[in-house]
Amino acid sequence: MKQTVQTIGEFGLIARLARRLLTRDPSVVVGLGDDCAVLECADRKNYLLLTCDPVVEAVHFAPQTPPRQVGWKAMARNLSDIAAMGGRPRWAVVSIGLRAHTPVRYVKELYDGLQTAARRFGCAVVGGDTTRVRGPMFVVVTLVGEVERQRVALRSGARVGDAVFVTGRFGGAVSSGKHLAFIPRLREARWLMEHFPIHAMLDVSDGLASDLQRLAEASGVGFDIRSASVPAHGSLRAALCEGEDYELLFTLAPRETARLKRHWPFRLRLTEIGRVIRRPALLLDGQPMEVRGYDHFA
Amino acid sequence: MKQTVQTIGEFGLIARLARRLLTRDPSVVVGLGDDCAVLECADRKNYLLLTCDPVVEAVHFAPQTPPRQVGWKAMARNLSDIAAMGGRPRWAVVSIGLRAHTPVRYVKELYDGLQTAARRFGCAVVGGDTTRVRGPMFVVVTLVGEVERQRVALRSGARVGDAVFVTGRFGGAVSSGKHLAFIPRLREARWLMEHFPIHAMLDVSDGLASDLQRLAEASGVGFDIRSASVPAHGSLRAALCEGEDYELLFTLAPRETARLKRHWPFRLRLTEIGRVIRRPALLLDGQPMEVRGYDHFA
Repeated sequence: MKQTVQTIGEFGLIARLARRLLTRDPSVVVGLGDDCAVLECADRKNYLLLTCDPVVEAVHFAPQTPPRQVGWKAMARNLSDIAAMGGRPRWAVVSIGLRAHTPVRYVKELYDGLQTAARRFGCAVVGGDTTRVRGPMFVVVTLVGEVERQRVALRSGARVGDAVFVTGRFGGAVSSGKHLAFIPRLREARWLMEHFPIHAMLDVSDGLASDLQRLAEASGVGFDIRSASVPAHGSLRAALCEGEDYELLFTLAPRETARLKRHWPFRLRLTEIGRVIRRPALLLDGQPMEVRGYDHFA
Repeated sequence: MKQTVQTIGEFGLIARLARRLLTRDPSVVVGLGDDCAVLECADRKNYLLLTCDPVVEAVHFAPQTPPRQVGWKAMARNLSDIAAMGGRPRWAVVSIGLRAHTPVRYVKELYDGLQTAARRFGCAVVGGDTTRVRGPMFVVVTLVGEVERQRVALRSGARVGDAVFVTGRFGGAVSSGKHLAFIPRLREARWLMEHFPIHAMLDVSDGLASDLQRLAEASGVGFDIRSASVPAHGSLRAALCEGEDYELLFTLAPRETARLKRHWPFRLRLTEIGRVIRRPALLLDGQPMEVRGYDHFA
């Protein structure tokens, strides 16, 4: 049978392309496989961060979604990737595919949404391009950020015995509209990296279970999650599997947890949900967790 | 009548969005309106360059275009933007919208095309994202490059009396297939910036007439082009209007032209096609030129 992107799925596709995307360029500290690429430039203090995440009509937003929210989401998804590295966003470029009959007013409001999100987090939109599409619209934002070299948060650093934390609540992001209006956790991630030795971090976009799995694979460890601790908006299943939460998931040494809970200065909920284990498996209360997150091609 | 992107056209749309995209960020040396954004980072020697240019199925390539050529074009268009600034490409991220039934083989070959173009010019592909679309495919490449601060080539520097040069030939790029296989003029642009005080440069993608108009507006000058000098592949009209040529267009002081012609080390054709004039108009042999380049929404 001929393989299609649907039969092997998004993650199968990425795995098959990974070999093709290996690079020997010594400036590439981290390439594929984290929330952003981490790049070494002449700046000895900081790494550059680079990330690019599209939103597509009928996949990430509906035709009737207000264009300001489309713009906000397109920018905020990328800001969330910068947050996941502990970084600061600096510059954005935007590529938009538009149908010819789209009202100019729609495009202006879309840009207002992009700009509102960018400005709120200190990011300048410095370029863009529009092109015609005869089909669903798309908005592709690329962000360049930076992060102090000693403060970059990778997916690969989780250690056996670490405590596992998440911000916010999980589940119901689509039905509640949170997926269009979420706040990227830049402030919280910066604070964490400045005050605590965070071992590993990512932003949960494809579902808590799915992204735990990814963090486990990147770090060569497993997780044991306590179901009663998962801050669920609705059912546990929704919390683990629905995705589009854009909350932080991170690990740190267990001796730091009390200090973290004491000093956490934000109103945003912070919850310890489990432990990092040696066995490369995802457990829920000690039993294998059924992992099923969002796959673009499933 | 309600305005749509079609009724005001691509350039009208960009003009209306420009106000929304103004930034006061002092790190932005050049934002909208050139081939790349020019950004100041901690590197005192170089500027960062940032550009993002999409290719869309049924607009920039056909459903039957071999995927390696789609990948090549998607990367080369952006490399050509880096060339136009006199820069060196460093890192690329790629966002691809794919239909669920696309064969995996197609995607692999598309990436091979992207990688072949990137590697040839010393650029590392460091990240990417695929998403599902229920309509035409798209490939959005974002490039980060760099350029020595004293060597950046802008559109805004053309001076009255300058000689106007182009590389290569114009017209027939789509019918000949050149638009899928063109060589971005990175080598030539670097050589020019290293050896000559180039006043203004861009890469001709929307048609010679259209891009002359843009260079004229950016520099606040006009051009008088000699029709007999235009290196046309086919008719003069095709050479002026068809676009997708991806050749360099640049100006320099007339006293440098003899030295340039003498020292030009490439087999690629180099042609002086006219002069920069004070009057903000586009003239062909002294008469107003009818400007009609490619507009995505026309």
